[in-house]
Order: sequence, then structure tokens, then C-alpha cells
Amino acid sequence: MQNDYQNKTLGILGGGQLGRMLIQAAINHNVDIHVLDPDPEAPCKHLSSRFVKGDLKDFDTVYQFGKSCDVISIEIEHVNTDALRLLETEGKKVYPQPHIIELIQDKRKQKQFYRDHGIPTSEFILTENRSDVSIHAGFLPAVNKLGREGYDGRGVQLLKKAEDLEKAFDAPGLLEKFIDFEKELAVIVARNERGELKTFAPVECAFHPEHNLVEFLFSPAEISDFLSQQAQNIAVDVIQKLGMVGLLAVELFVTKEGEVLVNEIAPRPHNSGHHTIEANFTSQFDQHLRAVLNMPLGNTAVRSPAAMVNLLGEAGYTGEALVEGLDDALAEKGVYVHLYGKKITKPFRKMGHVTILEEDIATLKKRAQKIKDSIKIKA
Amino acid sequence: MQNDYQNKTLGILGGGQLGRMLIQAAINHNVDIHVLDPDPEAPCKHLSSRFVKGDLKDFDTVYQFGKSCDVISIEIEHVNTDALRLLETEGKKVYPQPHIIELIQDKRKQKQFYRDHGIPTSEFILTENRSDVSIHAGFLPAVNKLGREGYDGRGVQLLKKAEDLEKAFDAPGLLEKFIDFEKELAVIVARNERGELKTFAPVECAFHPEHNLVEFLFSPAEISDFLSQQAQNIAVDVIQKLGMVGLLAVELFVTKEGEVLVNEIAPRPHNSGHHTIEANFTSQFDQHLRAVLNMPLGNTAVRSPAAMVNLLGEAGYTGEALVEGLDDALAEKGVYVHLYGKKITKPFRKMGHVTILEEDIATLKKRAQKIKDSIKIKA
Repeated sequence: MQNDYQNKTLGILGGGQLGRMLIQAAINHNVDIHVLDPDPEAPCKHLSSRFVKGDLKDFDTVYQFGKSCDVISIEIEHVNTDALRLLETEGKKVYPQPHIIELIQDKRKQKQFYRDHGIPTSEFILTENRSDVSIHAGFLPAVNKLGREGYDGRGVQLLKKAEDLEKAFDAPGLLEKFIDFEKELAVIVARNERGELKTFAPVECAFHPEHNLVEFLFSPAEISDFLSQQAQNIAVDVIQKLGMVGLLAVELFVTKEGEVLVNEIAPRPHNSGHHTIEANFTSQFDQHLRAVLNMPLGNTAVRSPAAMVNLLGEAGYTGEALVEGLDDALAEKGVYVHLYGKKITKPFRKMGHVTILEEDIATLKKRAQKIKDSIKIKA
Repeated sequence: MQNDYQNKTLGILGGGQLGRMLIQAAINHNVDIHVLDPDPEAPCKHLSSRFVKGDLKDFDTVYQFGKSCDVISIEIEHVNTDALRLLETEGKKVYPQPHIIELIQDKRKQKQFYRDHGIPTSEFILTENRSDVSIHAGFLPAVNKLGREGYDGRGVQLLKKAEDLEKAFDAPGLLEKFIDFEKELAVIVARNERGELKTFAPVECAFHPEHNLVEFLFSPAEISDFLSQQAQNIAVDVIQKLGMVGLLAVELFVTKEGEVLVNEIAPRPHNSGHHTIEANFTSQFDQHLRAVLNMPLGNTAVRSPAAMVNLLGEAGYTGEALVEGLDDALAEKGVYVHLYGKKITKPFRKMGHVTILEEDIATLKKRAQKIKDSIKIKA
């Protein structure tokens, strides 16, 4: 049936910046949004018709929240999937599907999935505890990851040499062969119930050397058409093999040998897609809505090259946030400041982002660096 | 002081679609929005930290609402300006300023202002009642306007010949010499407290022949650079002579002789600026916020030619709105559907709009017509 997405109630688990930007997009479609988040001051608080303060991992909380919605989606993976499974059996649409969220909650299962389905990824060894890791000195350098609860660089560490083994995570996790990659890319792909598929052009991520958070992102990635197509094909392959409905961010390594490997995936709007709000014909948030509500997917073509800079809480400042250096940025052509409505800043907390549009790539990079140097989140 | 716009509370009188799109823009700037509207189901209802149901024309309601805000603005002119004047004397920022809202509430005062300040406009005669109009048969054809309370084509009628005089408005109004214009343009201009001024490129309005509502709008207008500059200069002249802070939409006639005349003005975001959300580097809503909060004004350059189509309630349908024909539109490249969250449709009610981006102007016009023909708001 056409247009059956009208006047649906969409429940979102998580009310942070991703939910907030999703709401900005949802306003255009008359989608009624309900939000569940443990923080009574979550960024989405005043922007939904129903905001419920509650634990995303609690069965009853998630189940009760979902019962009044037609469609349930997420903006964070760490949610109670048992409740989502029950809602699904009771006829609710839950996208991404609960079993996919579970797969992605556990980096061990994720890697196993790639291996089982012939999806290119780095070599890995599953480990149960620290002593289990310690017998693999020969596998180093490797990235040691916790199976569960890692987020924004937490639960991930590099083990370079035998001495590092003593700091290995003492919990179920894995060792991934360290990839001395040439580039790190991300591709966002969407799939709706009708089976339509659309990818965004690959973007290039530049990470902060210490904090393992995306520092700059450039769109489109400066790679060959062949490599771009290869990266998009892999993203399509992953979402199809998952059978997932929704939006999937696929982080990829390009090795020095030109091989493309899947690093990690996230089944929701992603930091690597924020630029799409201004730089692509359809934004990742709009696309997420379209996918989970079974609307036609939007055209993803690039409107302009773009850079994205995360605005992180400045080291050494905790307390009520004050943004410095905004004036110059706001006056510039093609600069878009997005603040996330978080009252309290902490070192490296994601407080906002800035997208910069600029046709000339060299100028774009300079402007991105200047924006990053000039805007500071202090307290 | 730089950045003194951070964490301000902005009160908006009116919670319709203009307020709704303003909120979409305000989210990026962490501006806390309060809304006052008489309709408990107003489009802004769930999108503000404080929504007050109340009469915009009631002194106490407006005064009490404004007291808890730092800055007060409007999305409709028909508000109690005595309350706004008092709030202003008590130190609140009220933009546009109350005396300017009063001027614009009364089309007679508006015309008088143009005449007194050398702003080009059509000839006119002020009239007190029907019999007063009836003695001006020699001035016909003329547009008869009510001084107050006209909106969206209401309170405006064409008197072609002597027989029409009997339907003249029997209340204080005016007769404007009928302008058989070549084109109708609109220019949006913004001015902040710092005195910064920015105009958007003129747009061309195509009105529905019967209902006097904008049917299509094309940006930028297909006019010479000279005419474009002239139209923008007039808009700047008007806002400067008003001494206004905020956003001003200036509707202009281009006569067959190439003269540019001011038709009407609106001191707020305007239907003729909706395309700026996708088609310009800064949207009119973002610019309105920037102006009233004394932020740096944004760059207004055109990113792409655009058409805008209003989605009006289909004649013959009143009741719970159902949008037909969305699927094809949503799948198209560069088509942006904005629904306003109004549950009930009525004939010709503004239920939403669609912006179409397209480099080729001839194709753009065809696509706009196709969108208009395919999307219908029924009940």
C-alpha cells in the first residue's frame, strides 16, 4: 500500500544527538516521535510528543515504551533486545531487527558473521579473558576489543608488543590483526521493507590520534571510482546478508595493498554521515526514517564536497558548556554549526559538529582545520 | 559582546508552520524556544520546551508569556503590541519592534509610510467605509484592501468597474491603483542589532488566479542583474527606514514599464522564502534567528535554482488530512516535501510545501507543475 507511513508513531530508543537530528528530519514528514532515554535532560527532551525517562536496558521499560508505537527504532545499540523481540512477535515493526542489534552489540558475533558470510575483514582470534589473550604474542600488533559495551573508542586498545599483553581486557573479547591502513572509509547504506537499496558516497575519516574519535571527515573520499564502487558494493553485501531494514554505517579499511576490509558496522545514523544534512540531496537522518517507515528511499547524490568536524568538550573543562569562537564560523559561507543541546561539557564529550561546504578540496581541508582550531567548548 | 546569543530563551508569538520551521533551525543553535498559540494542536506544540495555549491578541496572555523570555519574536503580525511595548520598556528584546508590527498590522499606515519615506509604491486613496469608496469610480480598476486583519488573500479584492463598488469593504481600508504588473517579486532582507544587512536573491511569485495565494515560486527570479539589484536595494531601503531588527519579506511589482513598486511587507519568515531551506546557503529561518538574537547574519548565496509549491487543502475536503501522491515525489532527486503537522485539512489551507531543486529552469518549471498535479491533500 502506498503512503502507509503517514501518521505513524515512531519510537526511538535513545534521545541523544542522533535522535535530535532524526527529529529535525521527521518534522517534515509529520512523523510522530516518541523517545526513551535515561537522561531527563537528553537532547531530544523537548522535541518529541512523548519523552520517557527510562533505562534502555530494562526489559519492562523498553517493552512498555514500545507498546504505544507503530514502529520502533534505535539511535544507540545498547538496548534491551528481549523486549524488542517480544514487541516484534506482537506485530510491531522493529527496525533494525532485534537479532541484528544483538549481533552488533557483540563484536565477537559481528566478526564471526563476516567470516561466515565471506565478508572481507581483518584476521581475528576470539578470546575469553586476559590470560587467553596473553598466549597470542605472535599475533601482535593487534587491536584488542571488548566483545560488548565498547563505544566511541572505549573498549578498544592497541597491543603493539608482548609487554602490552598485561593490559589486555580481562573479559570476552577479541584480537584483531592490526591493519596499517592507507585510508579509513565509511559507507552508509539504507534498505527498506520493499527491498530498495541506496548507498551514500564513501567518506574518508581522520581520527584523533589519541582518543579514537573521528576528528575530521571528508566527503566524498578521495579515491578512485573503482575503489568507491567496491566500498559501496561491500556495504550493500553486508546489509543484504544481514537482511536488515534500516540504515547501516559500514566502516572500512583500505589496506596499503588496496584491499577493502570491513572494520565495524552500526545499524543507525552515524557520526560519519552528519555532513549529508547539507552536502547530499538526502540526509542520513531522512534516509533512516524512510527506511524504517518503508517510504521510498531518497536520492543520495553529493551536492557539494564537505568536511565535518566534531566539536568535542575541551580537555580540562567539566561543567556548564560555553562555546567559544562561534561568531567567525557563523559568518562564513557554507559553514553549518550543529550544537546538540547538552548543558554539561566533559573532556571529549560530543557537544556538536560543524559541516563545511567548499568545492575546492585543498581549501576545504584548510577551512576545516581553521574551524577546528577556532571553536572550543569550555565550561 | 561576542556569543551573547548562547542559551537565550526566544519566545515566539504564533506556533504555526513558520514557527515550526524556525524551531527546526533553532535546534542547531541550542536556542530555547517558547511558543504561544491559541490552537492547542498548533504545529509547534510538541517541539518547544514551553508551549502556552493562549490568545495572541490578549494583553495579559502576551505579557505573561513574554516575561519569561529573553527575546520575543513573532511568526504572525496579529498580536497584542501593547503587551510587547510594555515588555520592551521592561528591558526585553522584542524583534521586530512593536511599533513596526503596528505599522504592518494596518495596511493604511504601511502605505502612508511608503509615501512619507519616498519608497516607490502604487498610488492609493485611504477610505473609511463603502460609501467613501463609492465616490472613486474614476480610480478603478483598483485593489480594495481592508486596513486590518487581512491575511492570505482575505481582506483583498479587485474592483474592476463601477458596478463592483457595491462590494467594497465597509470598514477603514484603501484603494490601490491596479497594477497590471509584468512580474511579482519578493526579496527577503535581514538586519541585526549590529546593523549587518543581508538580502536573498529576488524570487518570482506565481499566484493562484482565484485564491490570491502563492501557487509557485521560482528562485532566483528570471530578471536582469540590474533589476535584481534594484529590488534588493529597495528591500534594504525599507528595512533601514523602518529601523527594523529581524527578517523582512518585501513583495514587489515590476510594472510593464520596468518600474519596481513595493506591494506589501511582512516582518517575519515568509512563504516566499521557504525554498531557502534547501536552495540557499542560509535559510530564511536561520537568518531570522540570527537577526533577532544578534548573531552574525548568514551567507545568502543561491546553492541551486529552485521552485516552491504550496500544498493547499484540496477544494471539497474538510477533515482529517490524507496526503495523496507522495511516493513518486519522495523518490525524486532534489524534491523536498515539508508537511506542517496540521491534522485537519480545509479547502486552501496551507498544509505543507514542496521545494524542487533543478539546475535547468525549463525542466524545473515542468517538474514543479508535475509535483503540483500529483500531490493532493484530501480528507
